[in-house]
Amino acid sequence: MIRTNNCGDLTLANVGEKVTLQGWIKKIRKLGGLTFIDLRDIHGITQLVIDENHEALIQDLKPEYVIQVEGIVKERKSKNLNIPTGEIEVEVNDLKIINKSETTPFEIKDGVEASEDTRLKYRYLDLRRPEMQHNLKTRSKVNNIIRNYFNDNDFIEVETPVFAKSTPEGARDFIVPSRLNPGKFYALPQSPQLFKQLLMIAGYDRYFQIVKCFRDEDLRIDRQPEFTQLDMEMSFADSNDVMQMTETLIKQILKEIKGIEITEPLERMPYKQAIDLYGSDKPDLRFGLEIHTLNDIFKNSENKLMQKLNDEKASIRGVAVEEILSKSQLKEIDEMARQFHISGIAFAKYENKAWSGSLASTMSDEEKNALLKEFNILVDGKATFLINGGEYDKISQTFGAIRNQLAKMFNLYTTDYKLLWIVDFPLFEWSEEENRYVACHHPFTMPKEESLNDFDTNKKEALADAYDIVMNGFEIGGGSRRITDPQLQERMFKAIELTDKQVEDNFGWFVNAYNYGAPYHAGLALGLDRIVMLLTNADSIRDVIAFPKNARGIDPMTNAPDSVTDQQLKEVHIKLDLEK
Amino acid sequence: MIRTNNCGDLTLANVGEKVTLQGWIKKIRKLGGLTFIDLRDIHGITQLVIDENHEALIQDLKPEYVIQVEGIVKERKSKNLNIPTGEIEVEVNDLKIINKSETTPFEIKDGVEASEDTRLKYRYLDLRRPEMQHNLKTRSKVNNIIRNYFNDNDFIEVETPVFAKSTPEGARDFIVPSRLNPGKFYALPQSPQLFKQLLMIAGYDRYFQIVKCFRDEDLRIDRQPEFTQLDMEMSFADSNDVMQMTETLIKQILKEIKGIEITEPLERMPYKQAIDLYGSDKPDLRFGLEIHTLNDIFKNSENKLMQKLNDEKASIRGVAVEEILSKSQLKEIDEMARQFHISGIAFAKYENKAWSGSLASTMSDEEKNALLKEFNILVDGKATFLINGGEYDKISQTFGAIRNQLAKMFNLYTTDYKLLWIVDFPLFEWSEEENRYVACHHPFTMPKEESLNDFDTNKKEALADAYDIVMNGFEIGGGSRRITDPQLQERMFKAIELTDKQVEDNFGWFVNAYNYGAPYHAGLALGLDRIVMLLTNADSIRDVIAFPKNARGIDPMTNAPDSVTDQQLKEVHIKLDLEK
Repeated sequence: MIRTNNCGDLTLANVGEKVTLQGWIKKIRKLGGLTFIDLRDIHGITQLVIDENHEALIQDLKPEYVIQVEGIVKERKSKNLNIPTGEIEVEVNDLKIINKSETTPFEIKDGVEASEDTRLKYRYLDLRRPEMQHNLKTRSKVNNIIRNYFNDNDFIEVETPVFAKSTPEGARDFIVPSRLNPGKFYALPQSPQLFKQLLMIAGYDRYFQIVKCFRDEDLRIDRQPEFTQLDMEMSFADSNDVMQMTETLIKQILKEIKGIEITEPLERMPYKQAIDLYGSDKPDLRFGLEIHTLNDIFKNSENKLMQKLNDEKASIRGVAVEEILSKSQLKEIDEMARQFHISGIAFAKYENKAWSGSLASTMSDEEKNALLKEFNILVDGKATFLINGGEYDKISQTFGAIRNQLAKMFNLYTTDYKLLWIVDFPLFEWSEEENRYVACHHPFTMPKEESLNDFDTNKKEALADAYDIVMNGFEIGGGSRRITDPQLQERMFKAIELTDKQVEDNFGWFVNAYNYGAPYHAGLALGLDRIVMLLTNADSIRDVIAFPKNARGIDPMTNAPDSVTDQQLKEVHIKLDLEK
Repeated sequence: MIRTNNCGDLTLANVGEKVTLQGWIKKIRKLGGLTFIDLRDIHGITQLVIDENHEALIQDLKPEYVIQVEGIVKERKSKNLNIPTGEIEVEVNDLKIINKSETTPFEIKDGVEASEDTRLKYRYLDLRRPEMQHNLKTRSKVNNIIRNYFNDNDFIEVETPVFAKSTPEGARDFIVPSRLNPGKFYALPQSPQLFKQLLMIAGYDRYFQIVKCFRDEDLRIDRQPEFTQLDMEMSFADSNDVMQMTETLIKQILKEIKGIEITEPLERMPYKQAIDLYGSDKPDLRFGLEIHTLNDIFKNSENKLMQKLNDEKASIRGVAVEEILSKSQLKEIDEMARQFHISGIAFAKYENKAWSGSLASTMSDEEKNALLKEFNILVDGKATFLINGGEYDKISQTFGAIRNQLAKMFNLYTTDYKLLWIVDFPLFEWSEEENRYVACHHPFTMPKEESLNDFDTNKKEALADAYDIVMNGFEIGGGSRRITDPQLQERMFKAIELTDKQVEDNFGWFVNAYNYGAPYHAGLALGLDRIVMLLTNADSIRDVIAFPKNARGIDPMTNAPDSVTDQQLKEVHIKLDLEK
């Protein structure tokens, strides 16, 4: 290597040294006969200073040129203590252009204003921006922490196939036509679930892998056709073991990446409680704003809406925020509610011991006092109460969304990172479409111990031995203990009304493996894109992926996906089937 | 966790401890009123002993049952010093069956005799065999060594896309129809080559990734449709920097995995020399058997074959092995030669100062002595000389294969692992099919410094700044310095006769990136499947991959690839195109 140091290296300790640096010109400015250049690489920025005697060296320089300089490290007069190299500069006595640059389509700096498609088209320039470099460096560090952690805990890293088999349950598969097997297709895995369970049967004890998974869904802000998960499974382990193992890892990541130390065990909240208090199975606990059931308070209400809800035996629920919402803020809340097909959130404002708002005008003193008491609002305090009713799950979910919106509106966050487990998920959910109960998680999920006896007769109440981990209102991972007893598996398939033939055709090869001596086992997967997004405060997972696709699944840089030749189609035994 | 130890843990240090173990029953045997069970997990085997008082515990046990036992660690009477736990046994006082097993289709032990398809169909049982567990554990360790090495050397791990774009040069792509973009296809990457070069332009300085790559080629013993490579690239670095970085890594792997320490720098052998001496650009240097050019010796030969070769101005080449080949061994050599369309390897045997063999009978004393001298055969020694002639490259390649065969035949290996670099590859090769010179490596490979001036006018002699690393006769990796100067890249495209339009259509977006300030850079990829195969002495890369495909690209366990539904085809805008 020619360079003696990188651009983030030099400090006062190096003063007097002769150094050679290589990097990109970030900025050139002239001041009192001297020329200053900020030289940038991924490690930092070093100030170069060129005096009048060396002006010939810098005649044709422009931003983003790649140069090599030789010079002496000097102490700076005007120091910049915000960067590690801010106390020194390099007095240049030789300079060489390594490569020139055309004017870039956008300036290489944080907070770029270019459209996302422009950023993606010139991704190699977008990736030069310090915040993108920080994001990808963080991602690399997180990967490293994860792998070292699992290696230290006796996990074996095993690569599972990308060319797998299409399975009928779950999301839509990406399929790959096989040239050697005409008319047949590989499917890209939505997760290595079955393979990791087989590895447990094969005796691999503890498995982990950081692995790409694939789901052909319509794209959204936090979805990509390919995504990365940390996948793990443990033998002779139950849910608690997996949760412990995961929790320690996540705490270590937060400590190493963010310097945040969480010492107490994470809360484990039953699913039902999460829905009840936060209207969500991924509640953001960086703020309170719990949802309350208010049927008791409004049981004799004079208010027409409340009366209607009482007549319908609806759940009347609401939140109180210790702020006074403006008209436009209330409208925002109404709009959010409408996305859940709930219209007209009733509200009452309380401030300076006075009430206002549509609902307040029809409330009795008794109701008012009960409301203040219910939400612990001081008589001297202020609050806006937002209330409506409906079917329990739906109205809870609506207020779940309203909670998040209020927190954003008034910046109610009391901490940077808040983690918890959601446990005791339902084992089944009713599928209107299929007119049967289906597995909430997947049909290999173990019922909770208390549901073992009657999960197949009491499907509505049956609980799963499954768990999700939630960070700042995002589900960042989840898993379960698996069924390892063939008889229990058979009961499960019967419970979701699969015929013997369906079982055999779809899972026969897999469930048969459990006839050859399986340890009990449990596991989990973490969504790495999302975790890194949260750790870097990025706006989207696209900002923590080097070369993502846009919302139409396109990479504007390479123009993938693209047409292929007739020859390519013919070789894999397919032709196009386009609508005219 | 319930277990207190795994099955490879306990030693004399634990005698007297009360332990709980979990694992698979490997073997049950009775001896003098006692029952001995070998309990297996991935960490080892522990001997359990059950006395007559506890016989009820073991009534229904069979091999491959998963059990949990509680007992006391005792010193063994008859010790087995071959395994870490061989000095102790566990005296069982409680035993519980965790899961039963049907009789397995093959016994779980090394050296299984089952067919490969049976092994793959019951892969979860095949993977229980100690040698397979050793292979995959080794693989996991190698991955860990690699990642820690690159992290320690300031490399950033970046994930590149699996959904990429089909490129016209190179091997056949796997393609994935896009649902959101009718008629368009993603291609699975054959390597992240272009992405890693863009990362250098983006300033990522040092990149690495352990990554799956895909090539739709016909399968062979050391090929799978998906394979894993260590991919790396370094900025402000030349070929020598990359070779140094790689070499240190490989030495570290050999040391940590095999306990083999290589202290001297690896030999760097020019491509031409490798072909000349070993008839191969991936010579196995665990043995000598250099190929010699013998035209001088046979220039006045009375032998008809030699005369014919002289007339044809053919290269007369040969090897000498200090063994006497039997008739059947000579036949084997002939058959090998025939695969290269060379028939009838001439031979002469020398033993006890006497000559025999077809060629010897027509050789003058002068020729005989010259031959002994050429190959350094002592007058008291013995040797078989194998000789023929033809076009230089072809006859060299033939003897390259014969060399390998002779080494196997007589086990001539003098060391377990032998590594070297091959350098100074040709930049171009002539394509008969396309009637033009094409890039040997890829068109972004930098010409060597001495070829920079005239590579486009002297294509036949032009050398590439490219390098392969060879272990035991296998190419385990390779790379090159890349072209980073747009003008040079233009000359390169002209040299391989691509029109401006072809360049623009196929590489336009990519070469344009070099107009925005690129550092010089070089990189390399290592084939991890092959490396782990060599480290574990496995017969095939399939033995170091958890769930490989068979030679028809099929996984007999899952039955992938498989048919998909009409709905699935329709959704991605394709239909089948099968021959009737």
